[in-house]
Amino acid sequence: MTETTPGWLAPEELETTRAKMPILYVEAVPVRVDESGEVTQIGLLLRIGPDGTVSRTLVSGRVLHHERIRDALLRHLEKDLGPVALPRIPASLQPFTVAEYFPTLGVTEFHDPRQHAVSLAYVVPVAGDCRPRQDALDLVWFSPEEAASALVQQDMPGGQGALLKRALAHVGCLL
Amino acid sequence: MTETTPGWLAPEELETTRAKMPILYVEAVPVRVDESGEVTQIGLLLRIGPDGTVSRTLVSGRVLHHERIRDALLRHLEKDLGPVALPRIPASLQPFTVAEYFPTLGVTEFHDPRQHAVSLAYVVPVAGDCRPRQDALDLVWFSPEEAASALVQQDMPGGQGALLKRALAHVGCLL
Amino acid sequence: MTETTPGWLAPEELETTRAKMPILYVEAVPVRVDESGEVTQIGLLLRIGPDGTVSRTLVSGRVLHHERIRDALLRHLEKDLGPVALPRIPASLQPFTVAEYFPTLGVTEFHDPRQHAVSLAYVVPVAGDCRPRQDALDLVWFSPEEAASALVQQDMPGGQGALLKRALAHVGCLL
Amino acid sequence: MTETTPGWLAPEELETTRAKMPILYVEAVPVRVDESGEVTQIGLLLRIGPDGTVSRTLVSGRVLHHERIRDALLRHLEKDLGPVALPRIPASLQPFTVAEYFPTLGVTEFHDPRQHAVSLAYVVPVAGDCRPRQDALDLVWFSPEEAASALVQQDMPGGQGALLKRALAHVGCLL
Repeated sequence: MTETTPGWLAPEELETTRAKMPILYVEAVPVRVDESGEVTQIGLLLRIGPDGTVSRTLVSGRVLHHERIRDALLRHLEKDLGPVALPRIPASLQPFTVAEYFPTLGVTEFHDPRQHAVSLAYVVPVAGDCRPRQDALDLVWFSPEEAASALVQQDMPGGQGALLKRALAHVGCLL
Repeated sequence: MTETTPGWLAPEELETTRAKMPILYVEAVPVRVDESGEVTQIGLLLRIGPDGTVSRTLVSGRVLHHERIRDALLRHLEKDLGPVALPRIPASLQPFTVAEYFPTLGVTEFHDPRQHAVSLAYVVPVAGDCRPRQDALDLVWFSPEEAASALVQQDMPGGQGALLKRALAHVGCLL
Repeated sequence: MTETTPGWLAPEELETTRAKMPILYVEAVPVRVDESGEVTQIGLLLRIGPDGTVSRTLVSGRVLHHERIRDALLRHLEKDLGPVALPRIPASLQPFTVAEYFPTLGVTEFHDPRQHAVSLAYVVPVAGDCRPRQDALDLVWFSPEEAASALVQQDMPGGQGALLKRALAHVGCLL
Repeated sequence: MTETTPGWLAPEELETTRAKMPILYVEAVPVRVDESGEVTQIGLLLRIGPDGTVSRTLVSGRVLHHERIRDALLRHLEKDLGPVALPRIPASLQPFTVAEYFPTLGVTEFHDPRQHAVSLAYVVPVAGDCRPRQDALDLVWFSPEEAASALVQQDMPGGQGALLKRALAHVGCLL
């Protein structure tokens, strides 16, 4: 993710590129499922911003040059949930939706002030223990009802709340 | 599956009903996946017909009255693969395709001389040991290339070969 | 739809069958789209019950014996929207979701007191004039925001409001 | 697509960027459908290379900075099929598959010697007249059987034949 990664952009190049072309992302909605595959819980990362604001986010990150989508998903899930989360990457790369984040507000419901990002979104059951790393403080599990509630939705920036609702609809958990 | 199942049809009623309305089925393509979710093997059941003909089939069966699709999938997977196959029923009920089996040849590529059956088809990773039961002799694992080969396809009756190809295409394994 | 349809069930047979096996349905969410395919309006049928209650419904109906899903969709759209609605049946039969209506409350969010029905659901753009027939009084077009509002949702019986929300999520119109 | 497009990369910048990050593409399989939505024909562009080699291709192109996927699809369809093709962009942005083109052979079945490209693929019914422009000589319509044949497949470079097969499987036209 830094200048030490071969084939990736140096920070200043990344800034330039971000201003000139869409950046490819993957996003994963971590879920717990029961034996019949039904989603019982949704995992959201807890982050505290420099100004103390609380936000809840999905697992998300860029796809690197010469990296498969499957490998990017696995890398970001491991980065955000730890090495023993045991994520089950889907067998099909057909995403449940594509989220388009624009630097301009209002083009879509997704907004990223830094860039135009296009994100392939997947629901990913995780079977193991989740131990958030890096800049996330914690991973909190919510019921589908809680995840769709206004209380949780308002803590999800940039339209990720809407993305989560799409995921809940896709797995039949949106009332 | 017989007259002892509450809420289901007696054999003679089933015959009558089959002649008058579409019967709802689920079908599962059992697969082995690697850590990144990529399909490495496809499991096909081996059956020997009364006349000695060999056929290879997917996991398949009816949905009972008052039974959820998830539960029908789990029941048929357990029936055909045994109790320790550890199937991972998908979190979303969106099937990768719908197969329409007609008693008349040529309406679609799917044919079932007994009935008009409509089948919701899913790819289901299995993580445990498979021990076929009932009328299946064995479960054989094939590579994606083998599964799509003419040799295997010709042993798959009623259009299930075409259904398998659709599954391989969906998971990105059809060349 | 009555005893005059060859191959279909007489009314008393239908009653019996409904009590014994799942009945296959198709459901269509009629939408208007702009040139870029974005959904701009959702069409809901207006029905007045015998007791004067207003309900809003999607296009919905059974699949007949020996009828393709495509033909069932076309037949029900024509039945409910009239002969010049010019519906665009999807090229792929992969539904955006499968709705399971149970006669028992609470098994899923879908409920049909008459039967266990399993419904394949599609979003169908319509390009022509809609002239509701049969028991529907009118077809009213709503914006995506209106369609997802509590006011409209409360008029959609049996969980069809939830189905509509899933459709809105699928086409990227659920905020 | 050149230095005159605001917000896009100058040719030399594009070369540099291509070597450093995945480039987002859209691909469209143009099809003719009948009234019931069934695919009857697939349209392939005919191109003659500088060395006289014939190739058949899908509609394909980059997504520009600050451009919606819907608009990129519409732009490339108009560019390749002319202004009166009347394409019906899907209501949902869920692609039927994601194709990953690597500059290295063998990572996936898709290959692009110039770059790492990730392509969101859609089936797009076209209702009007197609008049290829730019570097395509012609648009030829094939039956699904012809499109999947070895004869046509061998003229489709970089794995687009495999992508076409996935599309045919998705719309139920792969035997």
